[in-house]
Amino acid sequence: MRPSQRGVEFSKGHGTQNDFVILPDPDGGLDLSAARVRALCDRQRGIGADGVLRVVRAGKLGDPASAPADVDPDVWFMDYRNADGSVAEMCGNGVRVFARYLVESGLAEPGEIPVGTRAGLRPVRTHPDGGVSVGMGAAEVFGESTTTVGGTEFTGVAVDLGNPHLACVTGVDLDALDLTAAPPHDQALFPGGVNVEFVRPLDDGQVRMRVHERGVGETRSCGTGTVAATVAALRAAGRTTGTRVVHVPGGTVEVEVTSGGSTLTGPAVLVATGWLDQGWWDGL
Amino acid sequence: MRPSQRGVEFSKGHGTQNDFVILPDPDGGLDLSAARVRALCDRQRGIGADGVLRVVRAGKLGDPASAPADVDPDVWFMDYRNADGSVAEMCGNGVRVFARYLVESGLAEPGEIPVGTRAGLRPVRTHPDGGVSVGMGAAEVFGESTTTVGGTEFTGVAVDLGNPHLACVTGVDLDALDLTAAPPHDQALFPGGVNVEFVRPLDDGQVRMRVHERGVGETRSCGTGTVAATVAALRAAGRTTGTRVVHVPGGTVEVEVTSGGSTLTGPAVLVATGWLDQGWWDGL
Repeated sequence: MRPSQRGVEFSKGHGTQNDFVILPDPDGGLDLSAARVRALCDRQRGIGADGVLRVVRAGKLGDPASAPADVDPDVWFMDYRNADGSVAEMCGNGVRVFARYLVESGLAEPGEIPVGTRAGLRPVRTHPDGGVSVGMGAAEVFGESTTTVGGTEFTGVAVDLGNPHLACVTGVDLDALDLTAAPPHDQALFPGGVNVEFVRPLDDGQVRMRVHERGVGETRSCGTGTVAATVAALRAAGRTTGTRVVHVPGGTVEVEVTSGGSTLTGPAVLVATGWLDQGWWDGL
Repeated sequence: MRPSQRGVEFSKGHGTQNDFVILPDPDGGLDLSAARVRALCDRQRGIGADGVLRVVRAGKLGDPASAPADVDPDVWFMDYRNADGSVAEMCGNGVRVFARYLVESGLAEPGEIPVGTRAGLRPVRTHPDGGVSVGMGAAEVFGESTTTVGGTEFTGVAVDLGNPHLACVTGVDLDALDLTAAPPHDQALFPGGVNVEFVRPLDDGQVRMRVHERGVGETRSCGTGTVAATVAALRAAGRTTGTRVVHVPGGTVEVEVTSGGSTLTGPAVLVATGWLDQGWWDGL
């Protein structure tokens, strides 16, 4: 098998070590079953990734996953699939990698790029240094709650970013936390589960964060989690708007929270590109 | 980044879900540092694999990792690197994937292929059904010993296959074993640690096996482990030679043990091929 023996084109990339297999499919002809997504994301059997980003024109997305009405059919749509084969609405780290791919592959010019997602149209901007910014929408605070890790209680703020978060600002040593198990949460406030962030403020508007994602476990990064962490860190400083540099295990991002929205800026790395073996793909 | 924008050529494949990044480097020009191996094998930052197989002519292997004296300079040499960047001698699953790659890429004709390794020259044969056989050398039994999992004691046979094994034939339900921690071993018999196999005989010359690899943890497959398991299963049936079909979590292989050697036959799958981004590689 030489690279010249073409199969299904793919790339692999990551944003703060949240990693993705990218499948260019401009005209929507790819038969991307849940079984194929699971095999692709399997780290031993396939390429390995947290999710798949299918690159398709919004108008060619097809049923049953039709694009939202506010998304023009000509824009590039991020058809996000979780590693378990299910469909997802948005991913703050994925959309940065998606935009970087569009530019590097010549599908979009650098700069402002509107990206369609199942959560609606997202404004994305690529920067010359390799970073990418994405509008993450408004962060709605809807309460306070607590959780407990290793016998210590943590108080946090409940933040809705399309998905629910409990972001706990704390002075404890984050490295000492055992996040193997899901931190317990208030079932009434978070009936569908919750992503839990532990946020330690540092000097100069910087914070460290670790996150436990619902249904996944501890991860090296969570885009919406960094926005929730920033909202919580700002509140702890008596503010509702501002910026924070957020250090997660997988890297560093910057979050700006304004009165009506939020912006996540961070790295997007493309590692490899090539072809999936056609026989392997056909056998899935 | 389109596939036509070439960087460092690579492929990815697996043998019973023991997975590898393959780097063709016939003339030995690739600067494969330990840091690059670690980044390549990192499952979020890189491609992700249990190890790297550099494909190089034995005569071009270079120092300090010179080929053994019995390996002709023109044969293909499997320069195996562990995911942590260290050098390894042999890998029964890796050498099957290596041989499959040689054939699919046109570097060798199907059939008998001598492959150089740091453990010496290995006879390999590719089969039309996608399977590959490799001579694993003689399995030397050097004692009996015990280990304990979940309060249950298991008795096994100590087998040397270049690396040490304790293969325990048992009638217990293998699915019920908790192999999260390393099973304890006799420090006098296994001063450098040991790979521990739990082997349950089935009907018709078949066995199931789970394995805990020293320094790694439970894995989906271990080539030398399947040979040790076969030796132990044959002894339990009062034999020193014969064949067994071995079912491991990552798939199925067949092992033949003769008076002076052993042969492992199993699948070898190539998943993808392409190029590592040159800028990413140069930055490592």
